[in-house]
Amino acid sequence: MTDLLGGVDLGGTNLTLAVGRADGTVVAERKQPTRAEEGSDAVLARIAAGLRELAGGKALGAVGLAVPGLVDRDAGVTKFLPNLPTQWRDVPVRRTLTAALSCEVRLLNDVRTATLGELVFGRGREVRTMAFFSIGTGIGGGVAIDGKLRLGALGAAGELGHQTILPDGPRCGCGNRGCLETLASGPALVAEGIRLAKSGLAPSLLDSEVTPEAMARSTDAPVREAIVRAASYLGIGVANVLVVLHPELVVIGGGVSGMGEVLLEPLRAEVKRRVGMFPPETVRIERSALGDRAGILGALALASGRQ
Amino acid sequence: MTDLLGGVDLGGTNLTLAVGRADGTVVAERKQPTRAEEGSDAVLARIAAGLRELAGGKALGAVGLAVPGLVDRDAGVTKFLPNLPTQWRDVPVRRTLTAALSCEVRLLNDVRTATLGELVFGRGREVRTMAFFSIGTGIGGGVAIDGKLRLGALGAAGELGHQTILPDGPRCGCGNRGCLETLASGPALVAEGIRLAKSGLAPSLLDSEVTPEAMARSTDAPVREAIVRAASYLGIGVANVLVVLHPELVVIGGGVSGMGEVLLEPLRAEVKRRVGMFPPETVRIERSALGDRAGILGALALASGRQ
Repeated sequence: MTDLLGGVDLGGTNLTLAVGRADGTVVAERKQPTRAEEGSDAVLARIAAGLRELAGGKALGAVGLAVPGLVDRDAGVTKFLPNLPTQWRDVPVRRTLTAALSCEVRLLNDVRTATLGELVFGRGREVRTMAFFSIGTGIGGGVAIDGKLRLGALGAAGELGHQTILPDGPRCGCGNRGCLETLASGPALVAEGIRLAKSGLAPSLLDSEVTPEAMARSTDAPVREAIVRAASYLGIGVANVLVVLHPELVVIGGGVSGMGEVLLEPLRAEVKRRVGMFPPETVRIERSALGDRAGILGALALASGRQ
Repeated sequence: MTDLLGGVDLGGTNLTLAVGRADGTVVAERKQPTRAEEGSDAVLARIAAGLRELAGGKALGAVGLAVPGLVDRDAGVTKFLPNLPTQWRDVPVRRTLTAALSCEVRLLNDVRTATLGELVFGRGREVRTMAFFSIGTGIGGGVAIDGKLRLGALGAAGELGHQTILPDGPRCGCGNRGCLETLASGPALVAEGIRLAKSGLAPSLLDSEVTPEAMARSTDAPVREAIVRAASYLGIGVANVLVVLHPELVVIGGGVSGMGEVLLEPLRAEVKRRVGMFPPETVRIERSALGDRAGILGALALASGRQ
């Protein structure tokens, strides 16, 4: 019996493959373009070949695969994958990869997989109940309760970016209005940064591309205000999760979390204003320690049977 | 070993005592004024005497006691009880009643106890994961995950009425603004009904006391609009719980739920608008079947060791 595991983080743009162990050790790893337009058969064949190569001829005990969307875990089939071509719907990923690699293959939504990574190898190692917000192009999330991811019937529990924060707010890709994602994702922040720059209110943002990092470095007061406003919306989203679950830990990850304390400090302040009944010492709110490694490490945890 | 259990629902106004069995059978029951102003010693003595009387001299196996506020369950002591005199803080209820009744005594917040009642004897009997909204003078709640109440470090998880729905909304008793409770509790509904009546917009409400039930019977369009608005806020609160947990069932209880479909139908419609990603067939939203019996039946379930 081999102790080698395969991890796959399948994204709309990049495909990360890793071979490692249940303790989170990565033996070999590779990142390459997904090239999803070549079709699922081609991509799955590349995944199988890549994992075999990374394993150096050794057998894999199991594979965990993070998928950008909803999956039917029982059937091992993809369902709604908004960032991949439509032909990726209903792809029997588990059957195909199991046949190619002769081992068990486990599928899970990508942000829930990253949540598992945070729980098993990141900030969540010492807690039992945790919420994870991944703030990037969208806002994804996940919740772990009593040491286990909470998935719900469709694997969609933990979609924390689709809480309604402003009932009459901007339209969201999910069909709703005023979702947290419309107010505090990377694109929402950057759009406001661009508006401020074009309005002459943010001279610091005129010289280079407007990014969350550039905004975090800006000393223009209107830019700071825009960050505080987004952080306050995030704080409301965190506070609403606290009243439902009161987890021990909330982890803030995804690319936008790279802004650091300029985002986290006003976020924590808003949580305190919103739910004074949960004293700050009863719930930590921390930036991810794994960053964009949460996904691939979560895929190894998934392979190891942690979910 | 006796199979008789004691249940106590301690409210700011009324005290309900019951003796029954783990299957929810009630052998004898009594409701009386709490008279909390006489002090905790007097009330606890009356509880012990009352249970002894209802048990007809037989011993009790255990007692479950629902308390209106936060309790320290490990210590068996009351903490913050907003509807009882301040001297009710830090009362060693478990020690006192255990000494008086010679059996185990379990404490739990009242709305979480009602949630347990719904889970064990009500709509939740056939599900594992459930959210409960109790809409009355305030809005309380509770969540059960995998067949067990989720309480959190302070027993305050499940305070679903203190989600922020309108970030700049009305001030709440908890210190926050725009909590669901400020927008859709009984007093919030009735205040709007009174305003409409005084403004000449709701002739149907002029003849008798304005109550949620009277509003539910009204055919004045502005009253229906007010109900739909409150129901929509409730729908947002339910939708936000769905994105976190995706429970199989949401139970709507408390006095205001007596309004029935006039409240529930627009509530369900709002949930559908907000979270189209959770098809209605994956989560039932139902009115409590137990009504105000949820608390005392939950206290018996608590006594039986279900939590």
